[in-house]
Amino acid sequence: MIEPVNEQTNAFNAWAHNMQMRVEDVLNTHLPPSNTSPMRLHEAMRYATLGGGKRVRALLAYAAGEFCGAGLNKIDVPAAAVEIIHAFSLVHDDLPCMDNDDLRRGKPTTHKQYGDALALLVGDALQSLAFQLISQDKQLKSATQKLQMLHILALASGSRGMAGGQAIDIESIGIPLSRAELEHMHIQKTGALIRAGALLGAYSADKPKDDKIKAVDHFAKSIGLAFQVVDDILDAEANTQALGKTAGKDQLHNKSTYVTILGLSAAKQLASELHANAMAALSFYGREADLLRHLANFIIHRSF
Amino acid sequence: MIEPVNEQTNAFNAWAHNMQMRVEDVLNTHLPPSNTSPMRLHEAMRYATLGGGKRVRALLAYAAGEFCGAGLNKIDVPAAAVEIIHAFSLVHDDLPCMDNDDLRRGKPTTHKQYGDALALLVGDALQSLAFQLISQDKQLKSATQKLQMLHILALASGSRGMAGGQAIDIESIGIPLSRAELEHMHIQKTGALIRAGALLGAYSADKPKDDKIKAVDHFAKSIGLAFQVVDDILDAEANTQALGKTAGKDQLHNKSTYVTILGLSAAKQLASELHANAMAALSFYGREADLLRHLANFIIHRSF
Repeated sequence: MIEPVNEQTNAFNAWAHNMQMRVEDVLNTHLPPSNTSPMRLHEAMRYATLGGGKRVRALLAYAAGEFCGAGLNKIDVPAAAVEIIHAFSLVHDDLPCMDNDDLRRGKPTTHKQYGDALALLVGDALQSLAFQLISQDKQLKSATQKLQMLHILALASGSRGMAGGQAIDIESIGIPLSRAELEHMHIQKTGALIRAGALLGAYSADKPKDDKIKAVDHFAKSIGLAFQVVDDILDAEANTQALGKTAGKDQLHNKSTYVTILGLSAAKQLASELHANAMAALSFYGREADLLRHLANFIIHRSF
Repeated sequence: MIEPVNEQTNAFNAWAHNMQMRVEDVLNTHLPPSNTSPMRLHEAMRYATLGGGKRVRALLAYAAGEFCGAGLNKIDVPAAAVEIIHAFSLVHDDLPCMDNDDLRRGKPTTHKQYGDALALLVGDALQSLAFQLISQDKQLKSATQKLQMLHILALASGSRGMAGGQAIDIESIGIPLSRAELEHMHIQKTGALIRAGALLGAYSADKPKDDKIKAVDHFAKSIGLAFQVVDDILDAEANTQALGKTAGKDQLHNKSTYVTILGLSAAKQLASELHANAMAALSFYGREADLLRHLANFIIHRSF
C-alpha cells in the first residue's frame, strides 16, 4: 500500500509538472515569434527562455496565487514575466565579462550560441518584455493591480534587488565575505526575484487577504534564502552532468558561499532551519497552503 | 536691434537650458544615492546618467507635455525615465562586445571607468529603475495613466524597439543595407525611444486631447528619424573633440549610414524633408506648439 505522504508527493509532482508545462506554453505564446523581425534576436530570446529550468519562480507564483484565491489564467502572465526576468539574468550572468559560462540547462549558453553582442541584447529585450507583458495583460482587469506587480518586479530586478546582489557578488570575488554580507548579497541576488514570484502570484488574486499576503511574503523570504543555500551545497557536491551547468564554479571563481563560510554540514543545517521558518509562516493555514509546503520540500530536496 | 526670430531662439535656448537643469535635478533626486549599498553600482549608475548629454528625449517630453497641457511636475519623472533608458542603452552600446567605445560625453565610458561586468549591471539596473520610477511616481495620480506610460516605454525599449534596432545594427556590420532596411533599423534603434519621450510627455497631461496626441506622435516619428540622419552627418563630418564621443566610428565599423547610402548632400536634403514633415504635423496649432517647433530646429541644426 502506498503511504499517504507519498500519494501527496506524487500529486504535488504531477501538479508541478503540469504548471511547468503550463508556463512553458504561456512563454511560448508571449515570446515574439522567431519568424518576425528582428528574427535572430527573437530566436535567441526564445532559445534563452524556453525548454528548460525548474521554473521555481513560476511554481511559487502559481502556488501563492492559488493560496490567495486567484484563478490560474490570472497567474499565467505574472508567472511568465518572473521567469523572463530570471532568464534575462542568466543570459547576462553567463557572459564572458561575468561568470563566463559555456553551459546552461544542459546546452550552450546564449552567448556561445549567438555571440556576446546579441546575448547582451537578448537580456535587455527580455527585461523590457517582462514589463510589457504585465502592462498589456488582458486577464488582469485592474490597472492598480498591474501597476503594483510592475512595481514589485522592477524593485526586485534593480539595484536594490537582483542587479544589486550581482554587483556585490562580482565586487567580492577573491574577498572573503562574512556570513552577514553573504546573506545580504543573496537576499538581493536570488531572494528578491523568488520573493517577487510569490508576491506576483498572491497579487494575481482580485482581493487577496492581507494576512495571506504577509504569510506568502514571510514564506518566500525564508525559502528564497534556503534556495541559495541549497544551490551552494549542490555546486560544491554535484558534478556538471547532473547539474546541467558548470559545477564547482564557485570554488573556481574563489567565491564565498555558505559551504566555504559554514562548512558543508552547517550549511545543510541552515537549509533545514530556513525550511522550518518557511513552514512556520504557513502554520495558521490548512490544506490551502499545501502546495506552498510541498514546494518548500521540493526546493530543499532538489538535486539540480 | 535683435530680430524677433532671434529673440524667440534665445527664449527657446533659455527654456531648453532650464529643462536640462530641471531633468538633471530630477535624475539626481531619483537615482539611488552613491552612499547606499551597493555603493559602487549606485556610483556607476550616477556616473552613466548624470552630468551630460543634450537630454533631447527629456526636452521632447517637456515640450509635448506643455503642448498637451501637463504641468511640469507631472512630466518630471516620465522625462527622467526616458533619459534613464537612454543612458542604459549607451552604457551597453559602448561595451567591448558592442561598439567598444572609450569616450562618451567627453569622459571615459562607464565600462572604462568601472569595468565591463559592473557596466553590464549598470545598464540592467537603470532599465529596472526607469520602470520603477514611473510605477511609484506620486505626481501622476491615475494608475491607468502610469500603466499606459509603462507600456509605451517597455515597447520602445524592447525587441521591436530600441533593442531590436541594435540587434539589426550589429547583425548588419559589413553587410550593406538598403535605404529601406536602414530606415527600419533607425525607426527602432533611435526613433522608438524619441517617440516614447514625446508620447510620455503628452500622456503626462490628465486629459490629453486625441488630436494633440496624434500630432505629437506624427511629429516625433519624423523628428526621430531626422535626429538619426543628422547623427550620421555629424559622425561623418565632425571631429572627436566637438562630438564628445569617438567620431568616424560608423566608417571604422563598416556600418551603413545615411551618408554612405545617399551621400552627404542627399542626406542633408533628407534631414530637411523630415524636418518639414515634423513641422507639418503641427500645422493646425498656434503658439502652443512653438516649443516643439523650436526643438525640431534644435535637433536639425545641432552640431554635437
